[in-house]
Amino acid sequence: MHILITGGGGFIGQKLARALAAQGRLRGAEISKLVLTDLGEPAAIEAPFEVVRLASDLSDGSSRETLFADHGPFDVIFHLAAVVSGAAEADFDLGIRVNLFGTLGLFEAARAQGNAPVVVYASSMAVHGGMAPDPIVDGVELNPQTSYGAQKAMGELLLTDMSRKGFLDGRGLRLPTVSIRPGKPNAAASSFMSSIFRDTMQGNLSNCPVDESYELWHTAPRTVIRNFIHAAEMDGGALGENRCINLPGRCDSIGAMIAAMTAVAGPEPATRITWDRDPVIEAIVNGWRGRVTLGRAIDLGFVADDSFEDSVRWFLEDDIAR
Amino acid sequence: MHILITGGGGFIGQKLARALAAQGRLRGAEISKLVLTDLGEPAAIEAPFEVVRLASDLSDGSSRETLFADHGPFDVIFHLAAVVSGAAEADFDLGIRVNLFGTLGLFEAARAQGNAPVVVYASSMAVHGGMAPDPIVDGVELNPQTSYGAQKAMGELLLTDMSRKGFLDGRGLRLPTVSIRPGKPNAAASSFMSSIFRDTMQGNLSNCPVDESYELWHTAPRTVIRNFIHAAEMDGGALGENRCINLPGRCDSIGAMIAAMTAVAGPEPATRITWDRDPVIEAIVNGWRGRVTLGRAIDLGFVADDSFEDSVRWFLEDDIAR
Ligand SMILES: NC(=O)c1ccc[n+]([C@@H]2O[C@H](COP(=O)([O-])OP(=O)(O)OC[C@H]3O[C@@H](n4cnc5c(N)ncnc54)[C@H](O)[C@@H]3O)[C@@H](O)[C@H]2O)c1
Ligand SMILES: NC(=O)c1ccc[n+]([C@@H]2O[C@H](COP(=O)([O-])OP(=O)(O)OC[C@H]3O[C@@H](n4cnc5c(N)ncnc54)[C@H](O)[C@@H]3O)[C@@H](O)[C@H]2O)c1
Repeated sequence: MHILITGGGGFIGQKLARALAAQGRLRGAEISKLVLTDLGEPAAIEAPFEVVRLASDLSDGSSRETLFADHGPFDVIFHLAAVVSGAAEADFDLGIRVNLFGTLGLFEAARAQGNAPVVVYASSMAVHGGMAPDPIVDGVELNPQTSYGAQKAMGELLLTDMSRKGFLDGRGLRLPTVSIRPGKPNAAASSFMSSIFRDTMQGNLSNCPVDESYELWHTAPRTVIRNFIHAAEMDGGALGENRCINLPGRCDSIGAMIAAMTAVAGPEPATRITWDRDPVIEAIVNGWRGRVTLGRAIDLGFVADDSFEDSVRWFLEDDIAR
Repeated sequence: MHILITGGGGFIGQKLARALAAQGRLRGAEISKLVLTDLGEPAAIEAPFEVVRLASDLSDGSSRETLFADHGPFDVIFHLAAVVSGAAEADFDLGIRVNLFGTLGLFEAARAQGNAPVVVYASSMAVHGGMAPDPIVDGVELNPQTSYGAQKAMGELLLTDMSRKGFLDGRGLRLPTVSIRPGKPNAAASSFMSSIFRDTMQGNLSNCPVDESYELWHTAPRTVIRNFIHAAEMDGGALGENRCINLPGRCDSIGAMIAAMTAVAGPEPATRITWDRDPVIEAIVNGWRGRVTLGRAIDLGFVADDSFEDSVRWFLEDDIAR
């Protein structure tokens, strides 16, 4: 079992790699090699199998060729590399190059292997918005209101069509905002949705650029990693004629999430939140949807979060402790 | 008023050019130049304004550059060039090159003009299918079951996103099958949906590869041309946050359409239809949807067909007479 993770140096890529290392197996077979690629060389992972860490630009055709020639073929590919929401909105051409062309190039490389590999694709709930009902239910028209969301939706169409053609065996997951994200703020417009918890629990100030009534659709890192692994394990055919689904999540207001943090970590962190509105961030995140109906994904065995209190506890256990 | 029609040598492109010539004006201004491009040089059009006819491959970057450098900027662009359904299904890479990259390249050239031109984009009802309800209503998730449909849907996402960004002023129309199409059969899987009327009324045999109970969503050439012009004339902002709509059409079974032909043109043509099933064609067209609810497009001033009898009459007047 040879596995590739693009964006393997990123937040989810690193957590996924550690989870794979911990279980040692995938799809009923022992993992023998895991390749992590990212723009810079991904951090090391302790694992009972070979781990290759490569700096490689996914949007560059010759880098992709080298990657597959030197390290392919892969049985399972997790495609996580992306220019995230804030950056893709600021630089349309960069988003197109990486999120659209990079994704197509990766899927073409997977197709060229000839083994129709399992491809788990990280889409985003940012594919929803605009003229779609509230709450979002399964089967509504994707109407992204960011370039990031539009590019993710284009990748979904490619994934489903190339699966239908038998080129690959795709599974597309529309991720809720994953919170609490450890480490540094990033270029995602949703960055504050982790910072206001992560940074304040670690004694630092953090700004919330939206009102506390803002509602978001979110999931914990532990939950999303379980769901990524389930997506790789399941029978792709069970997804039917549309390989992409809304992952389960929870809807909470920023205010309710702060209350959950206070319940778990005490009253101090919340006092470190500043409240300066940012119209650029607001314009992006107001185009997203906070309310989503749980449906198809649950029937297909994906799991949902029970509370944001859990997310706070898991952050303290998994990330602060590390 | 400078206008570009890509695919200007094709069926709809030629009819649209003649309609523009007949009205002489668009969006309240006199038309001064119409550029028709296609793989081969488009046929001549009589018009009260300059008509430029160019052989130019839209999927080739330097051809696009020459087109815009020599003949741009355009105020209105009708984007009709495409690799049609049967051909895009048979050759995935060709479809991606023309329908995805060619479309993106054209939209980028329109953006580079700096004047946010009106872009009317020919999408297709083939964006619908798979896990979508029957009948199709406005707002259901696009779930194309052909590569052609997937590529058209990707173009829709680009059009809406680039309109949101202010790069262009897009209007995307999901065309029903346009019948009766004059001329020769083409590589569209829907080709027979015109041939069995067109060819038999002209004394020739024609094969119907599906059962006569097959239901299709169709519109007449006259209707679709009216709707293309309305799309260019209307305020793009009225489309809201999703620039793409299901055009109105009619649902009839092949059997009912044959009866309509018989009512207008007598019993002879129907006797020239042969009935050899074709599993390749069936696989494609069974992925399409015949039943669609009229909705948003009607509210926005687009028009629907009253009967297939009209379509037969208009074919005799517009195409046989020519
Ligand atoms: N974390 C979330 O809340 C969230 C929500 C929805 C969707 N997603 C999606 O999940 C995936 C992983 O998210 P994450 O939170 O780990 O993001 P991340 O930013 O931590 O990781 C993405 C990685 O992709 C890499 N990358 C960017 N361009 C690249 C290129 N040209 N070549 C190679 N690598 C490149 C980045 O360097 C980064 O390490 C992304 O596709 C993201 O869009 C995440
Ligand atoms: N006619 C229908 O029933 C129908 C239904 C749904 C959608 N559409 C769409 O409407 C548009 C026009 O349809 P039509 O029936 O006139 O089709 P058509 O085939 O008659 O015209 C399309 C034209 O595009 C040209 N073309 C193809 N590749 C090209 C390239 N690389 N560069 C430049 N030109 C290229 C072809 O030569 C052709 O003349 C198409 O986009 C089609 O997909 C048509």
